[in-house]
Amino acid sequence: MNLPVLIVGGGGHARVLIDCLRLLGATVIGVLDRNPALVGRELSGAPILGDEESIAAHRPGEVALVNGLGWTGGGAPRAALFTAYRALAYRFRSVIHPSAVVARDATLGEGVQIMAGAIVQTGCAIGDNALIYTRASIEHDCVIGEHAYVGPGVTLTSSVRVGARTLLDTGAVVALGVAIGSGCTVPVGGIVRRDLADGATLESSHATKD
Amino acid sequence: MNLPVLIVGGGGHARVLIDCLRLLGATVIGVLDRNPALVGRELSGAPILGDEESIAAHRPGEVALVNGLGWTGGGAPRAALFTAYRALAYRFRSVIHPSAVVARDATLGEGVQIMAGAIVQTGCAIGDNALIYTRASIEHDCVIGEHAYVGPGVTLTSSVRVGARTLLDTGAVVALGVAIGSGCTVPVGGIVRRDLADGATLESSHATKD
Amino acid sequence: MNLPVLIVGGGGHARVLIDCLRLLGATVIGVLDRNPALVGRELSGAPILGDEESIAAHRPGEVALVNGLGWTGGGAPRAALFTAYRALAYRFRSVIHPSAVVARDATLGEGVQIMAGAIVQTGCAIGDNALIYTRASIEHDCVIGEHAYVGPGVTLTSSVRVGARTLLDTGAVVALGVAIGSGCTVPVGGIVRRDLADGATLESSHATKD
Repeated sequence: MNLPVLIVGGGGHARVLIDCLRLLGATVIGVLDRNPALVGRELSGAPILGDEESIAAHRPGEVALVNGLGWTGGGAPRAALFTAYRALAYRFRSVIHPSAVVARDATLGEGVQIMAGAIVQTGCAIGDNALIYTRASIEHDCVIGEHAYVGPGVTLTSSVRVGARTLLDTGAVVALGVAIGSGCTVPVGGIVRRDLADGATLESSHATKD
Repeated sequence: MNLPVLIVGGGGHARVLIDCLRLLGATVIGVLDRNPALVGRELSGAPILGDEESIAAHRPGEVALVNGLGWTGGGAPRAALFTAYRALAYRFRSVIHPSAVVARDATLGEGVQIMAGAIVQTGCAIGDNALIYTRASIEHDCVIGEHAYVGPGVTLTSSVRVGARTLLDTGAVVALGVAIGSGCTVPVGGIVRRDLADGATLESSHATKD
Repeated sequence: MNLPVLIVGGGGHARVLIDCLRLLGATVIGVLDRNPALVGRELSGAPILGDEESIAAHRPGEVALVNGLGWTGGGAPRAALFTAYRALAYRFRSVIHPSAVVARDATLGEGVQIMAGAIVQTGCAIGDNALIYTRASIEHDCVIGEHAYVGPGVTLTSSVRVGARTLLDTGAVVALGVAIGSGCTVPVGGIVRRDLADGATLESSHATKD
């Protein structure tokens, strides 16, 4: 079931993924990119292919896709890409760096990405297309929604809930049992001590008053 | 000397420990819990046993105990449990996750727990029953008191002193050479730049004024 | 090319390095220190030697040096030591802890030190004599200047630039794409959301206003 991989979207995050996929022994066929000026070039040694035409050469079931987009555009393009290709019956492969520690009973959705040094403890559930970035750590019994982004160095205490499409930016810290809604934004270094309603943005000042 | 293990106290932290003990190849006999409604159930596949009667079936020297309590109740139950069973001549086994990095010359007390991704550098001394949580990092020559709690993602610079029963909550950061007393509380994301007297609580605002 | 090692400067950081070098299988000949009272003693089992006379017994090309100074004196002695011995044609060996994760395409200058649990992602460039401390993490495409100090638990988002001789103290967090000049100081727990000019010090309050 270790299908050859097509990466959709070519940028910095795609290069991190290629680095990781090689460590995992995966075969990277190439990178799909909509920018025609890039076609024929290479990204970390993988050929950059055109978009729709190139994927049409590979049927679902013959390749696994990997979502190459990071948090560009507030995460919407990343979620849309996943949804669009799933609707075409393509499947997304998860990418888990060998240095990450993931409890055996953690539940991972489709296409989850867990980068170097990240930790996911027992009893966690990570939704489809969620991105757990470098050295993030997620304590036991957390639930992370689909398309959510847990940024570099983010630390979640146990039993935290993070809604779909929510962004926890670099270095954020979340207290025990806090529930964060869907579509929320926690800024760089934000400290979340109380629940956040859907769509809320944690104010920087909030991070320091109690 | 790899005695079969009884975990005392069954909750989320106990499940993290069971996960870790299995990676270490330990035999987990079961989990002691005072709640009679739980007896006969399983916790991560380990049977939940009654409390006093069940342990009486195992003499000290035949089993090793592991403290299954996290920071419930401000840490007092965790410390009391350790003290009570030690008085009955039972010994507590340390639990160090395989992904943790512990310098060979670090001094570890009895029953120390060092979770996934945590780092303890050269010259450190960790007291009995101290809990070093997921991805915490402790720079060289720090001294951590007995029953202390170093929370997830906490970062200590070198030559820091942390007193007994002190709580450094998730994501706290402590500057070089700071001395924190016993029974102190540092909140989630707190930044400790100056010494704290015994029993002090770092104000959230303290974290940001200097 | 695995030359025997002389460590220049003996203190806590030197002991962390000795611990790491032994894990790497290096032969540590001894530690050079200017304090005559220490000569003849040991540091983590390595003999403490005198300074200028002792190194004169080893020609450049026969030994590799390792910079044993941490951030003592604001980093100036550490940089001066590197420059002085390079001028005498000695070379500095890099020290990368086995638990660190460094992308294969990252560019490392001479004498770079990357401590336990640190992560350097794809496309990064780390300057000569830079020190990446315990569990620091550097996202893709960051550029770190020579003699810079990335402290314990520091987290850099991608495409960050850090100038020469800049100090990012313990637990600092830097947002995506921020450019920090040379000779800057970011305090413990500082959050850098905007560019910093050469020589600037991030105010603690800056960390919380936006």
